[in-house]
Amino acid sequence: MDSSLLFLLFTLFTTTIPTAEPKSNSYPISFPRSYHPSLIQTKEPRPNLPFKTHFFPQILDHFTFLPQSYSIFYQKYLINSDYWDNGPIHRAPIFVYTGNEGDIEWFAANTGFMLEIAPKFHALLVFIEHRFYGESKPFGKDSYNSADTLGYLNSQQALADYAVLIRSLKQNLSAEASPVVVFGGSYGGMLAAWFRLKYPHIAIGALASSAPILQFEDIIPWTSFYDAVSKDYKDSEGTMSHELCFLQDASLNCFDVIKGSWDELETLSARSQALVALSRTFRTCKNLQSVYLATNWLWRAFVYTAMVNYPMQANFIMPLPAYPVEQMCKIIDGFPPEASKLTKVFSAASLYYNFSGTEKCFNIENATDAHGLSGWEWQACTEMVMPMSRSNESMFPPSTFDYKAFGEQCMGKYGIQPRPHWIITEFGGTRIEQVLKRFGSNIIFSNGMKDPWSRGSVLRNISSTIVALVTEKGAHHVDLRYSTKEDPDWLIEQRRKEVEIIQRWIDEYHAGFEENN
Amino acid sequence: MDSSLLFLLFTLFTTTIPTAEPKSNSYPISFPRSYHPSLIQTKEPRPNLPFKTHFFPQILDHFTFLPQSYSIFYQKYLINSDYWDNGPIHRAPIFVYTGNEGDIEWFAANTGFMLEIAPKFHALLVFIEHRFYGESKPFGKDSYNSADTLGYLNSQQALADYAVLIRSLKQNLSAEASPVVVFGGSYGGMLAAWFRLKYPHIAIGALASSAPILQFEDIIPWTSFYDAVSKDYKDSEGTMSHELCFLQDASLNCFDVIKGSWDELETLSARSQALVALSRTFRTCKNLQSVYLATNWLWRAFVYTAMVNYPMQANFIMPLPAYPVEQMCKIIDGFPPEASKLTKVFSAASLYYNFSGTEKCFNIENATDAHGLSGWEWQACTEMVMPMSRSNESMFPPSTFDYKAFGEQCMGKYGIQPRPHWIITEFGGTRIEQVLKRFGSNIIFSNGMKDPWSRGSVLRNISSTIVALVTEKGAHHVDLRYSTKEDPDWLIEQRRKEVEIIQRWIDEYHAGFEENN
Repeated sequence: MDSSLLFLLFTLFTTTIPTAEPKSNSYPISFPRSYHPSLIQTKEPRPNLPFKTHFFPQILDHFTFLPQSYSIFYQKYLINSDYWDNGPIHRAPIFVYTGNEGDIEWFAANTGFMLEIAPKFHALLVFIEHRFYGESKPFGKDSYNSADTLGYLNSQQALADYAVLIRSLKQNLSAEASPVVVFGGSYGGMLAAWFRLKYPHIAIGALASSAPILQFEDIIPWTSFYDAVSKDYKDSEGTMSHELCFLQDASLNCFDVIKGSWDELETLSARSQALVALSRTFRTCKNLQSVYLATNWLWRAFVYTAMVNYPMQANFIMPLPAYPVEQMCKIIDGFPPEASKLTKVFSAASLYYNFSGTEKCFNIENATDAHGLSGWEWQACTEMVMPMSRSNESMFPPSTFDYKAFGEQCMGKYGIQPRPHWIITEFGGTRIEQVLKRFGSNIIFSNGMKDPWSRGSVLRNISSTIVALVTEKGAHHVDLRYSTKEDPDWLIEQRRKEVEIIQRWIDEYHAGFEENN
Repeated sequence: MDSSLLFLLFTLFTTTIPTAEPKSNSYPISFPRSYHPSLIQTKEPRPNLPFKTHFFPQILDHFTFLPQSYSIFYQKYLINSDYWDNGPIHRAPIFVYTGNEGDIEWFAANTGFMLEIAPKFHALLVFIEHRFYGESKPFGKDSYNSADTLGYLNSQQALADYAVLIRSLKQNLSAEASPVVVFGGSYGGMLAAWFRLKYPHIAIGALASSAPILQFEDIIPWTSFYDAVSKDYKDSEGTMSHELCFLQDASLNCFDVIKGSWDELETLSARSQALVALSRTFRTCKNLQSVYLATNWLWRAFVYTAMVNYPMQANFIMPLPAYPVEQMCKIIDGFPPEASKLTKVFSAASLYYNFSGTEKCFNIENATDAHGLSGWEWQACTEMVMPMSRSNESMFPPSTFDYKAFGEQCMGKYGIQPRPHWIITEFGGTRIEQVLKRFGSNIIFSNGMKDPWSRGSVLRNISSTIVALVTEKGAHHVDLRYSTKEDPDWLIEQRRKEVEIIQRWIDEYHAGFEENN
């Protein structure tokens, strides 16, 4: 395996994935590509969200005073004030979602938790879109053209946007005395945690769900992410249906089939007419032009499904049944042993791409097309350098992350070198328990261990007020989703604790307010 | 009085001062000017400082990823490793001075405290020069040309410089396990406090001496600064020598004379031949071209002397005797009552400008010349907008700070609008006691109440670890100076407490380190 053959899989983050060793030059040395959530989410009409849309005139560059820094762009934000009670006595809170790398409506639709708890707190809800995503593009359709425009896209500018917008909003609403709590999931969770750390005078606390703020440099093992994905497939027996239990190690079978499929793909790719055969097996709409595309297609299905292995039917990235990893393994284990591994993994991946059953063929070519430059790809090439390797024990082909190769690719693409040490310099992370034991307060790091990103987050209490809420069976920010009738007890309990803690922050704030007035 | 007639007095900060109402157009509507410390300090050879000079290749813009952001400039820093003991067990601390708006040697020479305590802590000493000052100019001699270059000069970039440099230094010295404590006085003290708040993963604590982090927006009364200066002159009787005590209200006389002198100046300026007469009174080397210059010259003497009203002979901005405010009042009170106020204040100001007695005439014209654009002037026009008014009770002519007029002046000068709310958005300050009561730790705000900047600092303990050390008789970061034989007990005690607290931070750090390893 050649670790320089990377491409970036868009998840909520970008992960690096090698392809099978290329046997020809039929596809270029692959380069970071990513898949914007707005492009991969289903085309279904968005739920009719109970928010009003606003646009805030935001400054382009908070951290320089060059003439061009003062350019204004319009930053989108959503507001729900149905439950807000901002009487002079009540000083009801403002709950702000620190938007991540996508359309803000998408995050609003998948963060029902905030809407559900708003009545209890009489809270105002604000969802702020991240600069350079959705409709908040500083240079309109030219925003992704080059480093000259993308250069303004990064997390520190985004945090400053939130600070400026929140201060202005509070002033306009005469709500200076209302406490602000920030919420976020995934990258949005990282932003929420960092916002509390960097702007404690603006937010009294943060709920950072599935926020891998430690997925940088050498803080956690580089293999953690793919090891965690693999573990999900290995452990899938836990919820296997009884009729399959006669198969010994049903789950190990699932893991073994997936692990073995890459070799089978590679073998196939060496055969003449391989792509035609593969196109047939994978029911592609057009003939595949490279094995790499099929690899990518499978890979994405397995990684994403691990992330969204929710205990209920859901539609975050794609519509999926409850416990989709187990369902995938059920499909794989249901085949007779002699069936080809590729047939098995294709069927499993079909669950991810076609749970609704409406796809007659799969548009694999398009799925891996670069849909223009996307914002996260840029962030991954500049500040969000999350080194990921794959160990021999994972179900993916082994490889080692290589800073140099990565830098060369980013240089080739954008003419810009990554700053791989910048995030930790700016936000910290090394020895975080020691650093934050006596510094900072009021952060919840919530994680579910089924989510491979959990390994890069904070999984233990740091202090009495910087706490970890970890569930064994949770997936990617499942706690932020709307509640459902199928919610398991552990999820209900996790959310209950979150509400309890947030209530404490607000009570303490009010007590302090009285004290100081 | 016309509050749009501002000019900026360079202190360690810039303060706004009106002139007497202009009677002619002989001088332009005055505009922010400031006096770089390296230009106003004495020309004496610098003390032979026990430091080695280094230069660090620093990135121009930490917060964007534009092609031009990657430019490198060389940032100066000084190192003393005479006392450092970085054995693997000792993990001896690194004491870093976060340089402010001037040559770093100047701050090193005036921060003897760090050198004196280094042996006790076996500490490495590092003094880092602030970007755009001294020899750390990103665009060399063109650095101050316009907003296109100056745009990169601000406090957030400076803090990021310090973070990057410190991390790199620790790595190069294999000192990752050494705790870092930051020190700073005045603007450098603000940077030290902010550094601890924003980069707690890099510095375990901060000694922020005379750091007016609250001198923004409406946090403290706009009149505080000049009221405090006036109080110094009003209160000067405390140390008046006995032979003058027969004069009732000797100090009130001093205050009254200074307060009355502005009218006398104004009256004079209306008379024909006024400038010639004034030039004679003020012993100027060249004939004065405007009353404004004399006003400025006096003003600066009274404000600076209040700041550096040290209990020992010292040479920070100018060589001065111990308790120079009292000495000035002694001079004023020593005149017969019938002498003109201008004669009295000129004599008092001469103490400031000519304590050494070497000046045959005063170069008042040059003293108020704009010595090119200076860095602090830019900072004051962009982020460091510290509104200052003068009340009727002060010894200066009353006026009210006007954001609009200030903005127009900055716009005229640089083509750039101030961002007067940015510092508080970025660093906080409003209701600081409530915000930091449960957030953050390990900051000492040391202040002396004789220093007019003290009013903009933190004067009460916020928590058990964010503490205020306030002395009634202290002046501008006197605690950071070398000790002398004349040090009063209160100063010795203030420094002793600082050492004790810093020792506690380091002990806690080491205990935590053991715990987590």
